[in-house]
Amino acid sequence: MPSSRTEAFSDGVFAVAITLLVLNVDVPRSGGGPLQHALTTLWPSYATYAVSFITIGIMWVNHHAIFKCIRVVDRPLQFINLFLLMVITFSPFPTSLLGRYILASRDSGLAAGVYGFVMLLMSIGFGSLWAYTVYHPQLLAEGIDPVAARATLPRFTTGMIVYLACIGIAFISAKLSLAAFALIDGYYIFNQIDVSGSTDGLSLETP
Amino acid sequence: MPSSRTEAFSDGVFAVAITLLVLNVDVPRSGGGPLQHALTTLWPSYATYAVSFITIGIMWVNHHAIFKCIRVVDRPLQFINLFLLMVITFSPFPTSLLGRYILASRDSGLAAGVYGFVMLLMSIGFGSLWAYTVYHPQLLAEGIDPVAARATLPRFTTGMIVYLACIGIAFISAKLSLAAFALIDGYYIFNQIDVSGSTDGLSLETP
Amino acid sequence: MPSSRTEAFSDGVFAVAITLLVLNVDVPRSGGGPLQHALTTLWPSYATYAVSFITIGIMWVNHHAIFKCIRVVDRPLQFINLFLLMVITFSPFPTSLLGRYILASRDSGLAAGVYGFVMLLMSIGFGSLWAYTVYHPQLLAEGIDPVAARATLPRFTTGMIVYLACIGIAFISAKLSLAAFALIDGYYIFNQIDVSGSTDGLSLETP
Amino acid sequence: MPSSRTEAFSDGVFAVAITLLVLNVDVPRSGGGPLQHALTTLWPSYATYAVSFITIGIMWVNHHAIFKCIRVVDRPLQFINLFLLMVITFSPFPTSLLGRYILASRDSGLAAGVYGFVMLLMSIGFGSLWAYTVYHPQLLAEGIDPVAARATLPRFTTGMIVYLACIGIAFISAKLSLAAFALIDGYYIFNQIDVSGSTDGLSLETP
Repeated sequence: MPSSRTEAFSDGVFAVAITLLVLNVDVPRSGGGPLQHALTTLWPSYATYAVSFITIGIMWVNHHAIFKCIRVVDRPLQFINLFLLMVITFSPFPTSLLGRYILASRDSGLAAGVYGFVMLLMSIGFGSLWAYTVYHPQLLAEGIDPVAARATLPRFTTGMIVYLACIGIAFISAKLSLAAFALIDGYYIFNQIDVSGSTDGLSLETP
Repeated sequence: MPSSRTEAFSDGVFAVAITLLVLNVDVPRSGGGPLQHALTTLWPSYATYAVSFITIGIMWVNHHAIFKCIRVVDRPLQFINLFLLMVITFSPFPTSLLGRYILASRDSGLAAGVYGFVMLLMSIGFGSLWAYTVYHPQLLAEGIDPVAARATLPRFTTGMIVYLACIGIAFISAKLSLAAFALIDGYYIFNQIDVSGSTDGLSLETP
Repeated sequence: MPSSRTEAFSDGVFAVAITLLVLNVDVPRSGGGPLQHALTTLWPSYATYAVSFITIGIMWVNHHAIFKCIRVVDRPLQFINLFLLMVITFSPFPTSLLGRYILASRDSGLAAGVYGFVMLLMSIGFGSLWAYTVYHPQLLAEGIDPVAARATLPRFTTGMIVYLACIGIAFISAKLSLAAFALIDGYYIFNQIDVSGSTDGLSLETP
Repeated sequence: MPSSRTEAFSDGVFAVAITLLVLNVDVPRSGGGPLQHALTTLWPSYATYAVSFITIGIMWVNHHAIFKCIRVVDRPLQFINLFLLMVITFSPFPTSLLGRYILASRDSGLAAGVYGFVMLLMSIGFGSLWAYTVYHPQLLAEGIDPVAARATLPRFTTGMIVYLACIGIAFISAKLSLAAFALIDGYYIFNQIDVSGSTDGLSLETP
């Protein structure tokens, strides 16, 4: 099965999920308190919106990069991809939850922990997608060196450990853990690793 | 009419419908009871979200598989496809209904019955799409054997009978019927049938 | 400018608009009255959902048919298309409005009139798209006879008059006008006209 | 990295964002006051819906025009594009805010200022996308003259100054600033500039 229709469907799901995030930013209703105050107290909504948007955006860039290395899709790969998409479409839930609870005197840690847990699941989904692919070289596109590709797997494990650490931080300070997620995003925007053993220079960022 | 634009439109509808499901998972509001309790009592939302997501995901994989067997689309096929898409886009309604009523002392059976009825309609939509195609061989892609394709039709009937049975179970126990739908999903993830009489090995899962 | 990206964007808008309709079907909350009663009184939501879904579905089939006759898109055509898409994305509003007011003792006529007015605007959008195209033959695909294409324009005018009549009916009986819209849909599902003067048999349904 | 999948993803995001705008138009509930009055007082929702729809529509036409000039996408360009998409998907928030506050005795200026600020960010996103592209000629499609392309950059600056002026107007009169945004849309619908130094006549509208 060629990978093009799976890519098109995944692109659609990414595009909808990333756009639905804005529905979680509550619009103040006229007739309440002063708007300036309402907008200022909404900062957690903006911050979680931005962090989740950039995270899903990076995930899409990564998904794009992974599928450039894939020539054909088999049935297990399609269901691993579906698992990953399920976590990504679920992400508006923890985003909204963290936006509502990050300033709460109690439960902010739990909300940030749930957020981190969903990020960890995304990371596991990505790692599984890539691990399955590199161990089934018949799925790989031409010019991709399976040995070089496999050598990148430990980086995915590192990513998971970083997310696990963020879940720990969440229970100390929800705001700190949100800042940590933003930092991870910044890291992935400016860094990437090279998985191609060939000359055409494909590269892949670890999610 | 070549089938590509119909596929692209269907992919878009599947992608949006599967992503809208998350809007049915209510996010607890800060200031209510303890978050841990609120999250725990939300389990029906998560469970119905997961079952509906996986069901629509399998439907998409099936749709993909059916359209690989189709070369051109005629007017009746386009409207049968539109009927199927109408049922799929409607599925967030029964999903949300079941999530809200599965723990109710009364009416949980009716909610699960409605859920099962929509699943049955999906199954009928799929069966009709495939039945119409195999009885109009001029629509079939090259290499698809109409006789082998027709031989798969009884399996679609079996699928409908299973969904009918689930509707019966719904009125006994809503939770049991949700578990039954999850089991059917699991069956379709791991099993598929081969409809190609040719050598290129196309295969199709009954929905 | 080739028409393919305009088609892709339009397909996306159609797919999202048709899927958002379900958000207008209110899901009863557990703890209110008996579910069976709640579901029965929701019939206007289901009926308007189905009529709007089928109308947008037919519009998409028509849009598909019109763009098969278009080779390149110029700037005015792109903005006419954008106007049509604006009306289509707005359609969840009158759909929800009619679903809420069709049973109201007062104002049901106004709600049905608003619904009819938006349908009329869709019809005008479609007519303009087609009229602009047939009077700019350099935009037409090969094999499309501009004279035969122009001969279909009166049918679009007929369509607009029918919608105008439905708006009149709306103020007599909202339910009757919804039935009329369903009838028009049924007519367009089973009838189509042939606009090609050539031998490749393209055909177009008037919206 | 060829630009096609980035275009497809961007198209999806534009299509969803433009369609979600309708969710901000509140549907009156049966049982409140007379419908005619409710619909009349909703005019700010319709007006902001229309202005935002047309603005995003023009942005899409522009995005289309810019990407026709781009042959390949590099990593920084992908993240500039992602920033632009983040602003576009955020636009339902200021649209809804302005719709709710434009008639308020206090705070209408602030709401219109927020709206204008998001429009300014869109303009900056577009300017950055284009500026980055024209200063990296290796990304440009064949037949695009980098010198002619760079000569269009001052127009983007003009666009930003116009938006800045609109933010100033916002604090004088929110209604006037909405009219100004509508006027800017009208200007971009009927005017465009030519960036191609070649004979194939590509043209680009400044956003």
